[in-house]
Amino acid sequence: MPDKLKVALLGCGVVGTQVARLLTEQADDLGARVGAPLDLVGVAVRDLSVPREGVDPALLTTNAEALVAGADVVVEVMGGIEPARSLILRAIEHGASVVTANKALLAQDGPTLYAAADAAGVDLYFEAAVAGAIPIVRPVRESLAGDTVRRVLGIVNGTTNYVLDRMATDGLDLDQAVKEAQALGYAEADPTADVEGFDAAAKAAILASLAFHTRVSIDDVQREGITSLTADDVAWAAGTGHVIKLLAIAERNTADDGTEGIQVRVHPALVPADHPLAGVHGAFNAVFVEAEAAGELMFYGRGAGGAPTASAILGDVVSVARHRVLGGRGPVESSYADLPVLPAAAARTRYQVRLEVRDQPGVLAQVAAELAEHGVSIEAVRQTAAPDADVARLLITTHAASEQALAGTVEAIGGLDVVRAVVSVLRVEGA
Amino acid sequence: MPDKLKVALLGCGVVGTQVARLLTEQADDLGARVGAPLDLVGVAVRDLSVPREGVDPALLTTNAEALVAGADVVVEVMGGIEPARSLILRAIEHGASVVTANKALLAQDGPTLYAAADAAGVDLYFEAAVAGAIPIVRPVRESLAGDTVRRVLGIVNGTTNYVLDRMATDGLDLDQAVKEAQALGYAEADPTADVEGFDAAAKAAILASLAFHTRVSIDDVQREGITSLTADDVAWAAGTGHVIKLLAIAERNTADDGTEGIQVRVHPALVPADHPLAGVHGAFNAVFVEAEAAGELMFYGRGAGGAPTASAILGDVVSVARHRVLGGRGPVESSYADLPVLPAAAARTRYQVRLEVRDQPGVLAQVAAELAEHGVSIEAVRQTAAPDADVARLLITTHAASEQALAGTVEAIGGLDVVRAVVSVLRVEGA
Repeated sequence: MPDKLKVALLGCGVVGTQVARLLTEQADDLGARVGAPLDLVGVAVRDLSVPREGVDPALLTTNAEALVAGADVVVEVMGGIEPARSLILRAIEHGASVVTANKALLAQDGPTLYAAADAAGVDLYFEAAVAGAIPIVRPVRESLAGDTVRRVLGIVNGTTNYVLDRMATDGLDLDQAVKEAQALGYAEADPTADVEGFDAAAKAAILASLAFHTRVSIDDVQREGITSLTADDVAWAAGTGHVIKLLAIAERNTADDGTEGIQVRVHPALVPADHPLAGVHGAFNAVFVEAEAAGELMFYGRGAGGAPTASAILGDVVSVARHRVLGGRGPVESSYADLPVLPAAAARTRYQVRLEVRDQPGVLAQVAAELAEHGVSIEAVRQTAAPDADVARLLITTHAASEQALAGTVEAIGGLDVVRAVVSVLRVEGA
Repeated sequence: MPDKLKVALLGCGVVGTQVARLLTEQADDLGARVGAPLDLVGVAVRDLSVPREGVDPALLTTNAEALVAGADVVVEVMGGIEPARSLILRAIEHGASVVTANKALLAQDGPTLYAAADAAGVDLYFEAAVAGAIPIVRPVRESLAGDTVRRVLGIVNGTTNYVLDRMATDGLDLDQAVKEAQALGYAEADPTADVEGFDAAAKAAILASLAFHTRVSIDDVQREGITSLTADDVAWAAGTGHVIKLLAIAERNTADDGTEGIQVRVHPALVPADHPLAGVHGAFNAVFVEAEAAGELMFYGRGAGGAPTASAILGDVVSVARHRVLGGRGPVESSYADLPVLPAAAARTRYQVRLEVRDQPGVLAQVAAELAEHGVSIEAVRQTAAPDADVARLLITTHAASEQALAGTVEAIGGLDVVRAVVSVLRVEGA
């Protein structure tokens, strides 16, 4: 049994500072839980001159390579692909266990890291990479290891959830809500990664890999952000008993040719107001899981922020450190199922299609005929008057249809003389 | 590496049948996830003549002692204290890892079992003992191992949650709602363990032990059931923006003499209608956790039933089986913190006190004087007319007060000439 475990920290921003603080403040508790003291031996940063509140300046170093070579546990919270990737591989080569919060790296090149950790016989843990403080990686890969996951629906990006919430509660438009989120520190100066769904797509890839025992990279994820949503869309959603959420979805599905596989996608969707995910407000995250035996599960909490993310990281640090003290390792990558990732066009969902049409007899018949033509079945239609006298608004809710069929239908409907505009096409999930 | 792992099942009721079914149906997946096939070698039952749907009769045996002696993994779902306790100890002695759903046994005598497993170097897992399918044991003892849990608030008994929900939604009284729950199979013929809070108290003890790294037995849990609640209490709760839930509560607290410790209790409480726990309906369970770094977390899902409970059990089976294949062990009992369990009288909560008083000048002054006398601070008062002309109803919400102070106050108020009745005294939690 080691008399103490050397912990190296790579990165000392918002999250790293909290990891360093908690490692120090909770040293006695952590040592008791691990069975040996955890000794923070260094913190790798790019710039030594930046002050890091609560972090002993003597621990700071710019020589990350040397730091990881001498550690038992390496915590990577620098983010980005390089040098994080090389440093993690170097840590593994030197026999260190690794804890990382780096969703972008795992979603792009996880299998390389998993294979290296497996070959070296060390742990690679990453609870903090998905949904911040919420325990979701461990439950999916361990608690549900005896079950068959059908579907994962997650609100995994707090920035967009905050923005959509503000649009819903106060009728802000997207730009206003994004600016407010930036002012509060919930959104970056360049909000692209959040509002275009890249961040959520990385998390979707990681969750899908775990849930379906299949390698899924961010390139397999169909992605659509929230930038085309209007205040009007959000208000209409409320009027039909829904809220709009940016969802990360991973599900088992069957393609038209009978191939069984999975689909992974990120897009805004209408969620019924009485669904547990509808009540997830502000910057909170939640992940809803449907499994065959367990039924419906939901995991809820803070998806970002220094201290919440540090909590998830330190839980992993205790796990991997315990393994070094007591022997053994945690679960390794499980990709045995190797399910095919089905093309986006095969995804089947319900849709709400909003149209502006001429207010004259026979319009609905023409629109309905196009839907029937493309094999898309109507669940409900609602027609309302528009401010212009000769215009009507038509809201069509479909039964589950393939994205391909729906896209063809919408194109055909948009080409009808009687249709002035296809105002919006939104998926309905969680019903 | 073993070529296969022998799994023995003790008990074949609602849960055991599902465990047997899933072990068989999912054999290929489970084997791939574990790294070796899981072979169900026998199912111990009391009566061989009872038909067990989907279970190969050749596996049934009444000789549980012989069965556990030859197994690698023993799954105990027979329930009760004996012979479950002796069989688990015998399994451990023979070097088997154990998975159990037996909350009553763990809450009464867990430390004996944990010590035996630790001495033998085998795993003892029990995810299914608390909140059925919901992963809560693993998140609390592993994911939150790097954090400091402040408080756990759980709806961990589906029967009482169903009953309270029916009282709230349709105005049923307690007896009617319990009878309905019995008819639907949600409540036992003798509902005592559920409605008197014994089942929730066992789960509270287990959760508290894990969250606070301290041994907590069911005898340490202050317990109060739902049997004194009336349809009127439930309706009043709704009128003040609350719902009544039976909560299992474990929290850090400081006694009046400055002793830092924990309190563990089960009782009905008013929960604000906008709290995440308020939206947990029917037979669902949820556990709300407050930790220093992570903030607020919630775990939601099915708290009972054959398949959901079997899901949790099989997750544990995969974990302990992986350890046998890959080496190592899961976390052992952590009771290093050894915090004192503070007496119930030291618990501090907000209260709603409902009174029937004479409708005459000076009544509120007298009642308020008694509260002040006992050091209980008033947050809000609401007075309404009663059907009788000379009677008024008074609803007093207090700031946090100790149970001792509140009890003294209520006794004194009840003794006032102007007070006709203390209608109810309910705690307010989760604000």
